[in-house]
Amino acid sequence: MKRKITLKHIARELDVSISTVSKALKNSEEIGRDTKDKIQAFAKLYNYRPNNIAISLKNKRTKNIGVIIPDIVHHFFTTVFRGIEHYANARGYNVIVCVSDESFDKEVINMEMLANGSIDGFIMALSAETQLKNDYNHLKEVTEQGIPLVLFDRVTDEIQCDKVIINDEEAAYRAVENLIELGRKKIALVTTENYLNVSAKRAEGYRRALKDNNISFDENLVLQLPYQMEEESMSEAFFKNQKFDALLCVNEIFAVKCMGLARKYNKRVPQDMACIGFTDGILSKYSTPSLTSVDQHGELMGETAAQMLIDKIESDHGENDEEQFETKIISATLIERGSTLSNS
Amino acid sequence: MKRKITLKHIARELDVSISTVSKALKNSEEIGRDTKDKIQAFAKLYNYRPNNIAISLKNKRTKNIGVIIPDIVHHFFTTVFRGIEHYANARGYNVIVCVSDESFDKEVINMEMLANGSIDGFIMALSAETQLKNDYNHLKEVTEQGIPLVLFDRVTDEIQCDKVIINDEEAAYRAVENLIELGRKKIALVTTENYLNVSAKRAEGYRRALKDNNISFDENLVLQLPYQMEEESMSEAFFKNQKFDALLCVNEIFAVKCMGLARKYNKRVPQDMACIGFTDGILSKYSTPSLTSVDQHGELMGETAAQMLIDKIESDHGENDEEQFETKIISATLIERGSTLSNS
Repeated sequence: MKRKITLKHIARELDVSISTVSKALKNSEEIGRDTKDKIQAFAKLYNYRPNNIAISLKNKRTKNIGVIIPDIVHHFFTTVFRGIEHYANARGYNVIVCVSDESFDKEVINMEMLANGSIDGFIMALSAETQLKNDYNHLKEVTEQGIPLVLFDRVTDEIQCDKVIINDEEAAYRAVENLIELGRKKIALVTTENYLNVSAKRAEGYRRALKDNNISFDENLVLQLPYQMEEESMSEAFFKNQKFDALLCVNEIFAVKCMGLARKYNKRVPQDMACIGFTDGILSKYSTPSLTSVDQHGELMGETAAQMLIDKIESDHGENDEEQFETKIISATLIERGSTLSNS
Repeated sequence: MKRKITLKHIARELDVSISTVSKALKNSEEIGRDTKDKIQAFAKLYNYRPNNIAISLKNKRTKNIGVIIPDIVHHFFTTVFRGIEHYANARGYNVIVCVSDESFDKEVINMEMLANGSIDGFIMALSAETQLKNDYNHLKEVTEQGIPLVLFDRVTDEIQCDKVIINDEEAAYRAVENLIELGRKKIALVTTENYLNVSAKRAEGYRRALKDNNISFDENLVLQLPYQMEEESMSEAFFKNQKFDALLCVNEIFAVKCMGLARKYNKRVPQDMACIGFTDGILSKYSTPSLTSVDQHGELMGETAAQMLIDKIESDHGENDEEQFETKIISATLIERGSTLSNS
């Protein structure tokens, strides 16, 4: 009996990872001959075809857009989503969201499910695990079949598609320059592990700003926290052992937690420790002191992504036209508040 | 030419509201004969059938769950979603989210789209506008066709289905008792307009607690803010004109904004004004002082809703069995922090 199967089914049946199945079907060198044979034979037996509805998609418009975000309890991503919705609704499209939960497998499963004829195109930010694995076959599958895809914020050079990002390196550079202009000498960086491309870019901007201002880079002043894990003890140790008069944090939660630690260790903000975060969500506005923050213009990013996607969906380019892809860069803005301005 | 049409199409073509179309097709007395005739004729001409995939649903399992929430930039709803996801994934289901944006029309459109064979059942919280209009035909359509539905938090007695709520009335009662035990005499309530059933229930608990403690209810001490609108001037006037030594706020954003106003008007928190909010999200934890808050156990609510839905989807009850519906009530917990405890 033949039934419609997905990568997930194959992985489960053969007790291998989804990533292995995906690579094996692409004939990747990374997968051993035996495993590859087994997977390919199984896929053939059950008549597996990647996103086999894609063909019908070209004829049938659903007027739905699929959005995949890494995390739903995250102000930035939900703000981008709001921008996507507003723009898409105005052009008569509905939006469906799936959440990858920072998991590679869930990202793949969600894409497979949505590519199943439910949507006309994808807007997504890569999960942390996808960036860590550096495995983008599931995205290639989608783009190769002509399903329009726009990546935002967490993007990769490995995939040819439209992209919307902010100028992360430049934004971090300008935040650090701002701290230097305020007279700060020992500026620390609180960041995540570097496989997240946005954190890596922000760290670059941090280092370039120090260099351009003749401040030597001190690796002891970089606190790398595991992404999404509570790691109070690492932050505590950092506050106990390191001396700094300013902090740049790659998100507002890190920043607000650090301001809490500053209170605990009797550092006044901003007098003893100035603090700048990324995100500019409700935490930045309502913390005490309020947080100077890099506004990533999530809503604008979402609107821009939706416009690029819908324009592509509705463009009537012939099958053989060379596809043109674009990367739009949104300029971040530093919103100055009480955590750097002592008179506010 | 006949094409597949939806309520939205009919509404647009005939230039009436989606609600009117929905009611007309249900032969509602509220709609005039002429309009009803026109709409019914049009629907017939284009072969409109409500959620016409529902029949196929009974035979084909998608292993997808559709979730409709009123707002994505809202800690409580995203936490519930997380609970739904964790539970559903563990039982092999994927979750698709749509956001109604507090709009009746978007709620209807989203339901129609998802009922289109993409999902096995719905979990949803009603939009503010749906509660205001008090129009639930789109939900009745779904339940009448046997698509399982679980409502959470924002529910209605008009629909027979499984429900998960918290004990809002009781939670507000206990919060007010807590304030009275702390010696507060003039306790104000900051709430939304009353068509939101959860706000209405919390207001009832507030009044009952005052009554049981022989404190007379003073309507001047109730500030009703429009939902989702910036209304600084109303709050400012309230702080200028009213005297109170404690506040109960129906969500944490109202609470944190009020603590900001307290600072502005030189009221110390908690000494001059104790403050309790609902939600217990990141704002409560990281505000200064940290906010005493009613934990609604969103994740547990989500898990419970997902369990009820999947159990219903997988139950093999015969066509003619009497359906049993259940309402599960989750007990809220008061988390005491600095906004009521002066020594913390």
